[in-house]
Amino acid sequence: MITVSIVVIGDEILIGQVVDTNSGWLAKQINSLGWKVRCVRTVADDSVQIKNAVEAALDESDLVLTTGGLGPTKDDITKTTLMQIFGGTLVRDSETEKNVLRVVEKLGFKINDLTAAQADVPSSCTVIQNTVGTAPIMMFNKNGKILIALPGVPFETETMMQNVVIPMLAKHFSNDEYLEHRTFIVVNNTESGLATRLTDFENSLPQYVKLAYLPTPGVIRLRLTGIYSDEVKLKSTLDELSELLTRILGKNIICYEDKSIEQILGDLLNKHGYSLATAESCTGGNIAHRITTVAGCSDYFNGGVVAYSNQIKSDLLGVPSMVIYHNGAVSQPVVEAMAIGACNVLNTQCAIATSGVAGPSGGSSEKPVGTVWIAVKTPLGIKSQCFRFPGNRNRVIERATTVAIISLIEELM
Amino acid sequence: MITVSIVVIGDEILIGQVVDTNSGWLAKQINSLGWKVRCVRTVADDSVQIKNAVEAALDESDLVLTTGGLGPTKDDITKTTLMQIFGGTLVRDSETEKNVLRVVEKLGFKINDLTAAQADVPSSCTVIQNTVGTAPIMMFNKNGKILIALPGVPFETETMMQNVVIPMLAKHFSNDEYLEHRTFIVVNNTESGLATRLTDFENSLPQYVKLAYLPTPGVIRLRLTGIYSDEVKLKSTLDELSELLTRILGKNIICYEDKSIEQILGDLLNKHGYSLATAESCTGGNIAHRITTVAGCSDYFNGGVVAYSNQIKSDLLGVPSMVIYHNGAVSQPVVEAMAIGACNVLNTQCAIATSGVAGPSGGSSEKPVGTVWIAVKTPLGIKSQCFRFPGNRNRVIERATTVAIISLIEELM
Repeated sequence: MITVSIVVIGDEILIGQVVDTNSGWLAKQINSLGWKVRCVRTVADDSVQIKNAVEAALDESDLVLTTGGLGPTKDDITKTTLMQIFGGTLVRDSETEKNVLRVVEKLGFKINDLTAAQADVPSSCTVIQNTVGTAPIMMFNKNGKILIALPGVPFETETMMQNVVIPMLAKHFSNDEYLEHRTFIVVNNTESGLATRLTDFENSLPQYVKLAYLPTPGVIRLRLTGIYSDEVKLKSTLDELSELLTRILGKNIICYEDKSIEQILGDLLNKHGYSLATAESCTGGNIAHRITTVAGCSDYFNGGVVAYSNQIKSDLLGVPSMVIYHNGAVSQPVVEAMAIGACNVLNTQCAIATSGVAGPSGGSSEKPVGTVWIAVKTPLGIKSQCFRFPGNRNRVIERATTVAIISLIEELM
Repeated sequence: MITVSIVVIGDEILIGQVVDTNSGWLAKQINSLGWKVRCVRTVADDSVQIKNAVEAALDESDLVLTTGGLGPTKDDITKTTLMQIFGGTLVRDSETEKNVLRVVEKLGFKINDLTAAQADVPSSCTVIQNTVGTAPIMMFNKNGKILIALPGVPFETETMMQNVVIPMLAKHFSNDEYLEHRTFIVVNNTESGLATRLTDFENSLPQYVKLAYLPTPGVIRLRLTGIYSDEVKLKSTLDELSELLTRILGKNIICYEDKSIEQILGDLLNKHGYSLATAESCTGGNIAHRITTVAGCSDYFNGGVVAYSNQIKSDLLGVPSMVIYHNGAVSQPVVEAMAIGACNVLNTQCAIATSGVAGPSGGSSEKPVGTVWIAVKTPLGIKSQCFRFPGNRNRVIERATTVAIISLIEELM
């Protein structure tokens, strides 16, 4: 199996002001090719540290991907260090120069000396022109091991990997074994509860199949991965195990593909031909935001109201102010009236509504921080439930959003 | 200076299905203590890999923080590996057992064998009781070097670090030099454009002061960091340099603290005593979501409308349907009418409105994917502008959200 190591370069990541998303994205792509990421190392913009990390990575893996360290203000260190490992001298590359000019002009900026210097590349590398940014992508080869230096900007790395680098690497390396996955999106279970339910199942797995738990708040992805020389046998074994897992977990499995819950909800709404509205208080627009991350959501999502103040709950969603007065905004009658109001006002068959205390202030002994009422409405009726989510403000918002979306999925399944 | 290395443990991160946010968060905390993160290593749930990474980390740093590898389904490997390095045997800790029981009951779950096994800890460690989760935090000491094993769940690691571990570590280590930062939030500049403007400034910096560029889409954080033995001299030098930087960058600096733009907007709204509403089409609720991540935003944020369909733009925001018909939804007249409508309907002085083509479909030659009209309204008037953002759907949404928030900040400064 092809092994890969990733080196993330950048002071900004080690001081915690920029979160590295490149390594996770790259790992996902590599895994989908059937290759294995051995290690991710994050180091400073420092020649010694970059050299140590790259050399350790080249020792342990067939392919090394670096990201970052190529911005106009700091690419000197990275390029010089790579030349210490792969040899060569810095030369101005005319194709890269043209590309930098083209990209800078397209973005509406003016070329300056720092940007122009990005066209200086080690003579030991093959340049892959970056069509969406100014930092050239550089490919090095040493004793059959490959290093690709990618930009730090996620959009540039993602675009160029998908369009150019991955197809090129897939051709370069070839597999001798077959790899296959089966994914299960599971809700309403804790990781340890699920592990207990699946103890016998896990013990029954053949040597060449592994079960992975991939928990995120509110959702656990289960993944069966098989690696085997006989492709037909591998597929039939995984099919049998999938059936067995389905019998054990039943309705807790909401999807058999690695889809987001927003996409799963969108697919169900399309299948039923239903439209959707949101009425959010404590989640503050996050449910609408998550729903609209899905391309094509305008087919079923009409819109929503963020009713942060009580006045807006009455004015825009038609919640009677006496209902708010008598029950408080965080209550079953209010959240149900919000869902019904959203369907009426936004002219939809379905609605999701939330009202809760995200904190850090606003809690009481009766309704502490984390208390959230969630209502979901479909043509078959309305369902509401009170939850108490642990954690800080953002955790409560994210968790309430996830549970609200899952609640409607369960009604539509 | 105290040096720190971070080891992130987990198959789920190396296959890219969970994004590691712990290392970035930990790095930020460590940096704010004046300590330096040397390297972050991410490895699989594999004894050899964990051992290699932890030993390399102990070699290079005074303090090693590990996260992950402690969940109920996989803590065996991590604990066994740490005992290979630090010695000891696995023993049931009664205090930890009580704590696991308490936490499980508080979360409303039932104890099972897997969860109970979390109370087994190496005899070579000191346990720090995890009050918000079941995985005990373990502290090891070898020849004066410290290792702290933290859980993989971000909320647990963040809570326990802030409340217990950081104060404990700060006492344990002490500094002999003073470290001080000055942060500047800069907008309307590219990284290379800014570097060109600041070439002379950077050349004038004393040896013990460094300037860091921390770009995120639409916003660049500039950070001056000084490390020096004389605290008074350090402070006065940084004050002088800050004044100089302010003279150079002028209105491009929107804040002198490391605050989010949502927080900066909230502070300005509070200062003026203005209230805010949002009217979002292509950003789909993301502006409202970002605004409501700020604790206390209910002081100025009344709510918003996600007007995803044209009907909702008319019905809820009062945009005349003829205006939409004649100009198209993605147009100056419509986005301005949305902002005015939001102020009227949600009874506020200020509003932010967006209408654009997030893609991947819906673009035309005249209005390609990425075209976004943004309007901001204050009591002093309305301002609108058309942008063309590059990238995929999520990038367009995130960028439009950021630019919309900055646009209102600039009107209120």
